[in-house]
Amino acid sequence: MSKGTVVLAYSGGLDTSCILVWLKEEGYDVITYLANIGQVEDFDAAKKKAESLGAKKVFIEDLRAEFVEEFIWPSVQASAIYEDRYLLGTSVARPCIARRQIQIARQEGAQYVSHGATGKGNDQIRFELTCYALYPEVQIIAPWRIPEFYNRFVGRKDLMEYAEKHGIPVPVTPKAPWSMDANLMHISYESGILENPKSHAPADLYLMTKNPEDAPNSPDVLEIEFKKGVPIKVTHVKEGKSKDTPLDIFSYLNEMGGRHGVGRIDIVENRFIGMKSRGIYETPGGTILYHAHLDIETFTMDREVRRIKQGLGVKFAEMLYNGFWYSPECEFVRHCIDKSQESVEGKVQLSVFKGQVYILGRESPKSLYNEELVSMDVQGDYDPCDASGFIKINAVRFVSFIKSMFKKNNNN
Amino acid sequence: MSKGTVVLAYSGGLDTSCILVWLKEEGYDVITYLANIGQVEDFDAAKKKAESLGAKKVFIEDLRAEFVEEFIWPSVQASAIYEDRYLLGTSVARPCIARRQIQIARQEGAQYVSHGATGKGNDQIRFELTCYALYPEVQIIAPWRIPEFYNRFVGRKDLMEYAEKHGIPVPVTPKAPWSMDANLMHISYESGILENPKSHAPADLYLMTKNPEDAPNSPDVLEIEFKKGVPIKVTHVKEGKSKDTPLDIFSYLNEMGGRHGVGRIDIVENRFIGMKSRGIYETPGGTILYHAHLDIETFTMDREVRRIKQGLGVKFAEMLYNGFWYSPECEFVRHCIDKSQESVEGKVQLSVFKGQVYILGRESPKSLYNEELVSMDVQGDYDPCDASGFIKINAVRFVSFIKSMFKKNNNN
Amino acid sequence: MSKGTVVLAYSGGLDTSCILVWLKEEGYDVITYLANIGQVEDFDAAKKKAESLGAKKVFIEDLRAEFVEEFIWPSVQASAIYEDRYLLGTSVARPCIARRQIQIARQEGAQYVSHGATGKGNDQIRFELTCYALYPEVQIIAPWRIPEFYNRFVGRKDLMEYAEKHGIPVPVTPKAPWSMDANLMHISYESGILENPKSHAPADLYLMTKNPEDAPNSPDVLEIEFKKGVPIKVTHVKEGKSKDTPLDIFSYLNEMGGRHGVGRIDIVENRFIGMKSRGIYETPGGTILYHAHLDIETFTMDREVRRIKQGLGVKFAEMLYNGFWYSPECEFVRHCIDKSQESVEGKVQLSVFKGQVYILGRESPKSLYNEELVSMDVQGDYDPCDASGFIKINAVRFVSFIKSMFKKNNNN
Amino acid sequence: MSKGTVVLAYSGGLDTSCILVWLKEEGYDVITYLANIGQVEDFDAAKKKAESLGAKKVFIEDLRAEFVEEFIWPSVQASAIYEDRYLLGTSVARPCIARRQIQIARQEGAQYVSHGATGKGNDQIRFELTCYALYPEVQIIAPWRIPEFYNRFVGRKDLMEYAEKHGIPVPVTPKAPWSMDANLMHISYESGILENPKSHAPADLYLMTKNPEDAPNSPDVLEIEFKKGVPIKVTHVKEGKSKDTPLDIFSYLNEMGGRHGVGRIDIVENRFIGMKSRGIYETPGGTILYHAHLDIETFTMDREVRRIKQGLGVKFAEMLYNGFWYSPECEFVRHCIDKSQESVEGKVQLSVFKGQVYILGRESPKSLYNEELVSMDVQGDYDPCDASGFIKINAVRFVSFIKSMFKKNNNN
Repeated sequence: MSKGTVVLAYSGGLDTSCILVWLKEEGYDVITYLANIGQVEDFDAAKKKAESLGAKKVFIEDLRAEFVEEFIWPSVQASAIYEDRYLLGTSVARPCIARRQIQIARQEGAQYVSHGATGKGNDQIRFELTCYALYPEVQIIAPWRIPEFYNRFVGRKDLMEYAEKHGIPVPVTPKAPWSMDANLMHISYESGILENPKSHAPADLYLMTKNPEDAPNSPDVLEIEFKKGVPIKVTHVKEGKSKDTPLDIFSYLNEMGGRHGVGRIDIVENRFIGMKSRGIYETPGGTILYHAHLDIETFTMDREVRRIKQGLGVKFAEMLYNGFWYSPECEFVRHCIDKSQESVEGKVQLSVFKGQVYILGRESPKSLYNEELVSMDVQGDYDPCDASGFIKINAVRFVSFIKSMFKKNNNN
Repeated sequence: MSKGTVVLAYSGGLDTSCILVWLKEEGYDVITYLANIGQVEDFDAAKKKAESLGAKKVFIEDLRAEFVEEFIWPSVQASAIYEDRYLLGTSVARPCIARRQIQIARQEGAQYVSHGATGKGNDQIRFELTCYALYPEVQIIAPWRIPEFYNRFVGRKDLMEYAEKHGIPVPVTPKAPWSMDANLMHISYESGILENPKSHAPADLYLMTKNPEDAPNSPDVLEIEFKKGVPIKVTHVKEGKSKDTPLDIFSYLNEMGGRHGVGRIDIVENRFIGMKSRGIYETPGGTILYHAHLDIETFTMDREVRRIKQGLGVKFAEMLYNGFWYSPECEFVRHCIDKSQESVEGKVQLSVFKGQVYILGRESPKSLYNEELVSMDVQGDYDPCDASGFIKINAVRFVSFIKSMFKKNNNN
Repeated sequence: MSKGTVVLAYSGGLDTSCILVWLKEEGYDVITYLANIGQVEDFDAAKKKAESLGAKKVFIEDLRAEFVEEFIWPSVQASAIYEDRYLLGTSVARPCIARRQIQIARQEGAQYVSHGATGKGNDQIRFELTCYALYPEVQIIAPWRIPEFYNRFVGRKDLMEYAEKHGIPVPVTPKAPWSMDANLMHISYESGILENPKSHAPADLYLMTKNPEDAPNSPDVLEIEFKKGVPIKVTHVKEGKSKDTPLDIFSYLNEMGGRHGVGRIDIVENRFIGMKSRGIYETPGGTILYHAHLDIETFTMDREVRRIKQGLGVKFAEMLYNGFWYSPECEFVRHCIDKSQESVEGKVQLSVFKGQVYILGRESPKSLYNEELVSMDVQGDYDPCDASGFIKINAVRFVSFIKSMFKKNNNN
Repeated sequence: MSKGTVVLAYSGGLDTSCILVWLKEEGYDVITYLANIGQVEDFDAAKKKAESLGAKKVFIEDLRAEFVEEFIWPSVQASAIYEDRYLLGTSVARPCIARRQIQIARQEGAQYVSHGATGKGNDQIRFELTCYALYPEVQIIAPWRIPEFYNRFVGRKDLMEYAEKHGIPVPVTPKAPWSMDANLMHISYESGILENPKSHAPADLYLMTKNPEDAPNSPDVLEIEFKKGVPIKVTHVKEGKSKDTPLDIFSYLNEMGGRHGVGRIDIVENRFIGMKSRGIYETPGGTILYHAHLDIETFTMDREVRRIKQGLGVKFAEMLYNGFWYSPECEFVRHCIDKSQESVEGKVQLSVFKGQVYILGRESPKSLYNEELVSMDVQGDYDPCDASGFIKINAVRFVSFIKSMFKKNNNN
């Protein structure tokens, strides 16, 4: 008799294929679920493979549009960046993937979900917190944290042997000496030879962006139009070509950024689990958007509102990284950030060239920039004498401080 | 009889030359003071000009070394960046310049200081807050805020006429259609044709960095060594050349960054005075250091310490921008940040290429990176089962939240 | 010919009566405006006095209800407290008063507004920032900042003489040796003999609260019901009496708090203008609400949401104190805080006794408190083993830190 | 053969006595350790009991002085308060107790430590994080998280039976229907009948403070002198009696606060583990110190320094509550806070009466209060005209904002 039904997040690779079979061995009915979030993948082949390995049901779900609109866009609004550098391409995909997995589990009456994430990483947390938030009674099977599993499959060799024994097709090309995770927003690379933080990444690592050295020798100039803090249109200024649906916009920015080698970083970051890890990321479209959004935001948002929003954005990035998308605090912060974006609207012109994004100019019907007020040539409403009072009053506090210091020193 | 002595921050240009003569007309003895903080300038010519215009005394002060060590270095430690983009090259020079001006005023028994900063900008505040903090009784003469002065000199034409009448040498080359401010750390450009935030900056604007399009077609690879959060050595990896004094290190990074077009930004920013302004900056060496420091810091600093330090850094940047270097709060924050940097030590390798800085690798005797702990191939001390408990406990709070929501909804 | 019309915030006292006459002398038509925000005042007498002094028009406006609903309630939601102690009773009244003043100015076609606030205080800023925000073109006449005025009226004696000369009724009772400001929320006392921060406040200072030593010897027990973070009902538990409109609720809490001497503080605070000042406040109803709201909020709000909201509340209090109620950032923060209060609902029982508020218990349909989960007697869903993993993973980061410290020390 | 040596945090009560015997049953040598941190306890009896139950060695350690100086004092400096109400009396004792336990374990060559904290509480985390930080290799035995233990001892009845069977003296007085934790700083009460958040605490619950209703009818007036943010002397103003060592000062404040019923709170708080719990606390001396320190701090600390320090204090309180005293971030924050306290010096007079602390006045050689500057009667250095400029410049930003809103609305 079956122990119950598991919805397994299935990638088609060696690991999750072995998990599929192992779960069956353990007595579960297995439904596989593979999300298309923009990674390069032979979804048909994965489907057939899962079926041939005994999946009771196979789901291949195209989540690309909702990934962009419901997950990437709020991150753009937030200027979400982890530890000042990482644009969170993996983190932001996880709640999107797990949400659909939970929907399937509920719809199929499955009490269990399973995934192939390791026990040392962030992804296990991101997946599982989403699962618990959306389906509090769900039971999670994380084989890489189950001693019977991880003691049996100590190295890749063990998986290969198991695969051969159970008729699991074994990859013919040798595995890259690192692991990667790809989606519409980015590809991340870590582990293997990258674990030495001193050694340089090999030049042929990157799949999404061209080596800047080999990128075109002249820039492409783009105009991105924003409304409520999200892009609604991107136009190639010279070619006149434009895109205006979220998925098209983002894909086009990936193409442009990729062509020019935009968005590569090599960092050491702090995992939620408490260890530092080295990661290499390429985020072409996301990097362009980060810069463009920052520009239009500063142009249209009040200084002090932005200061508060910036603090909320830092918190949002931490929550996102740590897997708390579906927490009460993240929903609250997303609401506040969304509110702050009401007037973040207008057009930014920028060029992409040899790995870099250059902002060239901006315009907006909601701009708070007042050309007359700031002009060095026109006085405008502004009375320069006011500045004297402003400065003197600002000095009151610490002139008082200094004087009391002197007084004290003289008394001693 | 003299009204007293003024120490005038003198640039040698048309404005401050007119101010010099005007102050004399108004009955003051004028001492001029010109700080060398790394700008390109004919200091000898400026000296002669001031003397010929009747300066009672002329000070030309080389502040470059102290500028780097006492002002730029703390900003590097803080990762000081204003509104996520501006590295504060002008802001950080102001307290350095004004400090020496005050020292001269005290030493020369002057009751007054004067400067040529406009009434709409940040610099007037930065200068004057420093003056009040270091010499609370000082009187400040800011001609561009005195109606008799600014109503008399409405445009450049008025200054030119005044100059001709008073024997002030008039510039022969036409003025650039923007204003600029240069020092060792950066050049800023604003005003004039740049006031339209939509119009692109002219290609020939930049003086410190090469156009990335014209930059070398292969990168330079540098290794920067840090101790206590500041660079103590930079080495050109291929050429083996190295620098190890603060001024030499920073100048060399400027040279390298400049050669590769690193550190150009075009932004709209929020002035302390409450208006938005458009500024264009090039900060070659500072940009390299910002990235390198960020990398070694994350490598050697505890995650949570860094999170607190990051918040302090944001505050520090605001204080610096607003002119509060010599405030009690800025001294306190600098102390805290300095404390946080005790173990920020090690070497970062990076390449500069076509406007971009790429981190390549890092190493440190004080690293908190634990290769064994993070490794996917070795278990180490780490028990993956612990992660299950960690995740479940993290979920307690919002599972509870979700359940109480359901309960409420069912009750309604 | 008149210079124009001024709407003067008129209190009926000596100062603003002199200002009224002085403004007329200066050639203005004067409309007086007196807001009833709950202070004890003979409004009829003030009206007659203003008319007799030549006011063109006299407005007496009862703002009590809107003061409670639109200004005090948001402050309660925010747990607004300045520098950990001051409940902002004066601050919160200012935008309410100035808003109506501006409405009158617009409606009466007045280009000017005027007030009797001093040049060293916070109130001038609070009034004027509100005026500029709601009527950017308005001109403000602040006599205590106009040299012709303040040099003429150096002491109270000068005002008295001026009053006698101009037929302004002179107060017959001697002025208290301090100044006070009263409204529905609180009375503040400062200046005069209170300026010495060491000297104790006289026992007969307080007008709104009984001396705790003379307060009843047994407590009153109240139940306050909240919805969306604001009180909707207060019930005297023993007497069964209840109030359920904002103004009635707040007035009743004032009565109860006043009877028991609740809400007295004696503090030194930091003015926006940069100086420290000593203030004594009594805020009976506000203090009760502060404690009750805090209790129901913690009971019904998620921990992390509250942490973020707490930070926003601190910022809100600063804005309120500094006079930025009508700033973009304050509107943004009020929106966010309001959002956070959606589930802040339920009943708090408390007793007031001898100057203190004691929370006794609470209940809520939206509580996040889970009695089964927390119980020491029931296991519930909770698996204690999870805590081991939680603790160990939390320790990973700093065990790693400690070990790397040892390693370094051993290497040295 | 012994499995090894355990140092058990032993209270002398039923629970830890059973744990002692159980650990022996399980094959461990047991050393008991009982810290005197000011709780009322018969230490001799506990010693004898432990010995009679087979403890290999018994440590009774008087930690009261170090508890005050090294743990309570930094908390006073920080104004540490959790969720705006709880003064952290239990939290701050835990690292103090566990530190000594670890010292004993190292000295005695024990590889294990054990405690009787439950699996749902905060204390387990506070103890264990301290242990891991100070002795990373230590193994922790937490019986209440071990299924064999907690399934065997489901209720108090099971413990009683086990006790009888193993010759453990059984308490003769019935257990209070709640649990409590006492130390020099406070007593906390929770669980049992207190788990219902609505029910009022029984009047006879409190052991450390008198019922305010029964407290003396006249106040005691105290003067507390601070240096570097910690009290160095307390004087009873009328009686002239004074104390000047940390332990004496704190004990005397407990006595005074206790006599007047100061420091009782009834709250629902958020545990680190993610659940809300109801706790009742009495913190007599700590409450007095909290208020006195706040007063002298605001008097002597710059406004903006205090604002930053306030944020650090909030973080410190969270760390302390969550058990992170010995984390890198907590050490960093303690350092920063300590730095901020350099000038926090002077005397505060206050009265304690019927549950309340009233600040009466303060004086300090390091005060930043400037009586002349703030005076309404003296102009001092201050020019009121400066305030006009200050206000107008502060309004620039949002006048600009308002105008752009109008413009937009008119355009629509």
